[in-house]
Amino acid sequence: MSTTNDNDIGRPYHTQCTGPALATVSQHRDEADITLFGSCFCPFVQRVWVAFEYMGISYKVHEVDPYKKPQDLLEVSPKGLVPALRFNRYNPPRALNESTVIMEFLEDLASTTTKRNLLPPLTNPYARALVRLQADHIGRTLVPAFYRYLQGQDPEKQIVEEKEFHTAIDGAGERVALKKGLGLWIESEGGQDLGWADVMVAPWIFRAKIVLKHYRGFELAKGERFNAWVNRLLEHPAFKATCSAEQLYLDSYERYAFNRPHTSQVADAINQGKALP
Amino acid sequence: MSTTNDNDIGRPYHTQCTGPALATVSQHRDEADITLFGSCFCPFVQRVWVAFEYMGISYKVHEVDPYKKPQDLLEVSPKGLVPALRFNRYNPPRALNESTVIMEFLEDLASTTTKRNLLPPLTNPYARALVRLQADHIGRTLVPAFYRYLQGQDPEKQIVEEKEFHTAIDGAGERVALKKGLGLWIESEGGQDLGWADVMVAPWIFRAKIVLKHYRGFELAKGERFNAWVNRLLEHPAFKATCSAEQLYLDSYERYAFNRPHTSQVADAINQGKALP
Repeated sequence: MSTTNDNDIGRPYHTQCTGPALATVSQHRDEADITLFGSCFCPFVQRVWVAFEYMGISYKVHEVDPYKKPQDLLEVSPKGLVPALRFNRYNPPRALNESTVIMEFLEDLASTTTKRNLLPPLTNPYARALVRLQADHIGRTLVPAFYRYLQGQDPEKQIVEEKEFHTAIDGAGERVALKKGLGLWIESEGGQDLGWADVMVAPWIFRAKIVLKHYRGFELAKGERFNAWVNRLLEHPAFKATCSAEQLYLDSYERYAFNRPHTSQVADAINQGKALP
Repeated sequence: MSTTNDNDIGRPYHTQCTGPALATVSQHRDEADITLFGSCFCPFVQRVWVAFEYMGISYKVHEVDPYKKPQDLLEVSPKGLVPALRFNRYNPPRALNESTVIMEFLEDLASTTTKRNLLPPLTNPYARALVRLQADHIGRTLVPAFYRYLQGQDPEKQIVEEKEFHTAIDGAGERVALKKGLGLWIESEGGQDLGWADVMVAPWIFRAKIVLKHYRGFELAKGERFNAWVNRLLEHPAFKATCSAEQLYLDSYERYAFNRPHTSQVADAINQGKALP
């Protein structure tokens, strides 16, 4: 591999998907009711994209450079953050942003259209609540822990940051161990499919295996059941369809791994110890 | 009034409701399927409590002292935070915590039982998404701005913090101005009832009018439509039923207003510039 993890060699982030994700983009260039504004390396985009793929909701992909913040992005997302949706049927077009809000929207839309839902059915409100509790933990604890570890430059602190990231992953598993059969996290007898919390966490699990491994020597491996879950998750067709080739992530995340200034609004929030934007 | 806003006179927080909230507690002391673990001054609890009242879901109130963290609270809420629910039908009992997750749970439960929902109907996913976007803004921006302003001790910074709190309130209004008829926030021709974002924000609007006014001289008044919304919101029977008398809040929030050490996990997070627990 032509990379090194010792020095920042100034690799630029990518602006176009590669690998399986590029094939998926090519199949979604035609006009559709909903346009997904996305950036190839953004994990918050990937969440939403996996949901579109899984639920079978029609969409058009519009790849934007989130650092340039083109005008059409600012029109649908006030802070210029991806993901964002534009609903093209309306004049002026309607818009939506924030990955968790978009996820809930797609779940609602699937309920009355494709019926391919990620949450357990409405007839089991407690199962839905446990999954949402897990998603809350992922957003509030696991995702910030990922960035703190990746951006941390002090080798001694990295040991603590690595441990905190591991603990956050364990916490996500523990919460759902209360209840079997919620998504892929716990395998069950009756066969399993992708679930809400799986999609919420998958982009960071994927990046941990590529980016944290390369830049921090991180090893995700845990117990046998956990490893089997990771394999099932990353091999799921709806997830794989949204993945670029590994090199894209190594290149695009070098700026995070060396904590370059002006890396992103997410990176700035982590450096300031603030909540993510 | 026997209070002063110049010196911390060491008033203790309350552990039991007063006023209309006490009457409501008295009506909910009998065993029920769901026990609501709450504390009289906690706004995150009030959110959930208003939803129970509005939706007509049966519950028992169990008032706990969140600073003492009794064992029965820790069994249902790992960090000892309120609100938490215990589902008494199960052995061992099931539990749930996090106010936003509990809100979604109650909304789901109401969908198949009382049909008294706070979100727009599933047939209008975009209206639901706008309300969730508003709730996301409330949780991410408005609530932290409230505590920064209340805990800030530097008079020069307080001017900035007051402005940021005003901006956060304006932002919540703007988001929903895109779409009429979502809860009480915007009055509409067809009559209005309490909505999701109304309940999400109401406890802090109420405390702004009492606590921020007393300790910071804050005036909530804005335009005529905004003021009318505040009046409708705070007079709604489901909200009023959960309100104690003003003195309870003045006493219980003195510790925040003078930023006493060990005030709460929320206060500590604000002092450290971190995301709320």
